Amino acid sequence: MEHLKIVASARQIPSRQVTNDELSTMMDTNDEWIHSRTGIHQRNVVVTENTSDLATKVAEKLLEQTGTTAESIDFIIVSTMSPDALSPSTAAIVQGAIGANQAFAFDLSAACSGLVYGLSVATSLLTRYRRGIVIGAEVLSKLVDWHDRTTAVLFGDGAAGVMIERTSDAIGLAGEELRTFGDKGGNLVAGQFGNSNPFSGEISSLDPYFHQNGREVYNFATREVPEALESALKKAKVAADDVDFYLLHQANARIVSSIAKRFGQPIDKFPMNMGINGNTSAASIGILLDELREAGIIHPGQTIAFVGFGGGLTVGAQIWKI
Amino acid sequence: MEHLKIVASARQIPSRQVTNDELSTMMDTNDEWIHSRTGIHQRNVVVTENTSDLATKVAEKLLEQTGTTAESIDFIIVSTMSPDALSPSTAAIVQGAIGANQAFAFDLSAACSGLVYGLSVATSLLTRYRRGIVIGAEVLSKLVDWHDRTTAVLFGDGAAGVMIERTSDAIGLAGEELRTFGDKGGNLVAGQFGNSNPFSGEISSLDPYFHQNGREVYNFATREVPEALESALKKAKVAADDVDFYLLHQANARIVSSIAKRFGQPIDKFPMNMGINGNTSAASIGILLDELREAGIIHPGQTIAFVGFGGGLTVGAQIWKI
Repeated sequence: MEHLKIVASARQIPSRQVTNDELSTMMDTNDEWIHSRTGIHQRNVVVTENTSDLATKVAEKLLEQTGTTAESIDFIIVSTMSPDALSPSTAAIVQGAIGANQAFAFDLSAACSGLVYGLSVATSLLTRYRRGIVIGAEVLSKLVDWHDRTTAVLFGDGAAGVMIERTSDAIGLAGEELRTFGDKGGNLVAGQFGNSNPFSGEISSLDPYFHQNGREVYNFATREVPEALESALKKAKVAADDVDFYLLHQANARIVSSIAKRFGQPIDKFPMNMGINGNTSAASIGILLDELREAGIIHPGQTIAFVGFGGGLTVGAQIWKI
Repeated sequence: MEHLKIVASARQIPSRQVTNDELSTMMDTNDEWIHSRTGIHQRNVVVTENTSDLATKVAEKLLEQTGTTAESIDFIIVSTMSPDALSPSTAAIVQGAIGANQAFAFDLSAACSGLVYGLSVATSLLTRYRRGIVIGAEVLSKLVDWHDRTTAVLFGDGAAGVMIERTSDAIGLAGEELRTFGDKGGNLVAGQFGNSNPFSGEISSLDPYFHQNGREVYNFATREVPEALESALKKAKVAADDVDFYLLHQANARIVSSIAKRFGQPIDKFPMNMGINGNTSAASIGILLDELREAGIIHPGQTIAFVGFGGGLTVGAQIWKI
């Protein structure tokens, strides 16, 4: 086991709520159709903020909660598929904004598995560093074609993250299984940058918007998430029954239910919040974690599974003793 | 020291060469002006390839050279500021293309420090995993405004990387200093994604192209690179004289010369190739490493410094015993 302590969590949700009913005034859709297929009733979208604004708020809350100084942070990882820019990284903007002047910072791109991959990287960096911040932050509303009812109804904006430190206590990352399936990557695409320069035969203008083969992604998730979770449990030497809560990426309630059933676990151990937040990609697991910690439902002494899956296609399952 | 072996390096340079003379037919510039300020005579640009194509070639060469199977790779990191897309990651595309079906893959965004940051992450992951690939890959020609002579002359396309493994030998990463200066991030910007959705007050259309405050970046590099390098040397307990070669990010010959002078080192220990490759951001140090390994100039038994700096703004210095 990697001995680590998640010392704090925080989240930042933009205040503008967009209900399915509001979307139905913009496109041919309705609440019943969306909710029955996804579990989503509403999502939150930014009005003036960009991804770094949400992520910076999360970092500020983490510092405030823990009473630590920004100077004590060794690294900042922002997992995102909707960065402010390709340079500077969103993490660098956060680092500058909070004045973490001893930290190095970078973004990690693994779509909806971003927070889990980020926690794996942080776990590893903490063999050589002492304290880090990992944030999943997304302004997916930038990447949504708001005329496409097949994708516009799915996504939301938000950010959440954790401060994590080395510890001598017998807690931390007990086991993980991370997998990528790049051969299936074309089933969930966004933010394409085509080849274009005066020396290329043609200027390609690839669509920057989300495109998803929902059926393929659904089949992928219900097949590969159980495999990865099974493997992570085995590596952690933890029985499925002994996990207190499974925090799965909040893409779709049907996927979550299917996985709960597959492991013979009560659905209460699989909390869901996509109903009010939509799919926030790399932010979803952190938002859920922070809500449940705040409510006292998740607390020290428990065993928690984090399970991300999505664009890449990617899967990541971790078993944490917190 | 982290005991690691760089078992192979490889590079992929697109075949279309664009000389300063050719650029002077497109914009008001000339070879003398460009070369005297940057050290650059030409750069290579893609015609049909995207970033993942270059990176996949590098990964294939790494497997071929080492005779290892794709299935034996535990992770693939692609450091890039010019990914094919925001999802899937370029690393996922590489993973799928080479059939590394046991590997997880993600992109890391730290601009010109990307390879050094990626090597730091890989070093850490190798405490728990066995074998990884780290590639810096860029198609910067996608992000260049080819009407802007202040930036169009600077950048080139290319990719390079290493295969890296745990070892019991007394070689590996002896020390590093990674730093980020997000408060200065606005001095080197590319690929901005503005806030835009129907619920925001206005649709912002940020310029996707490179913008650089060259003077600020130059001042930053000549001030912060020596600081980081000094710190890395100290942590590694290596004297500047005992480093065989300093492989610096190939942004500008004047920056490299300035740093050689600062450390009282002969310029021969600071090899340069920006003359023919331009600034290839995250790819530059890997390209240089591979050229010098191929030529037998860099070989086992030496002490090498890798030093990245640029967008973020970021700096990363590492001392490796190879």
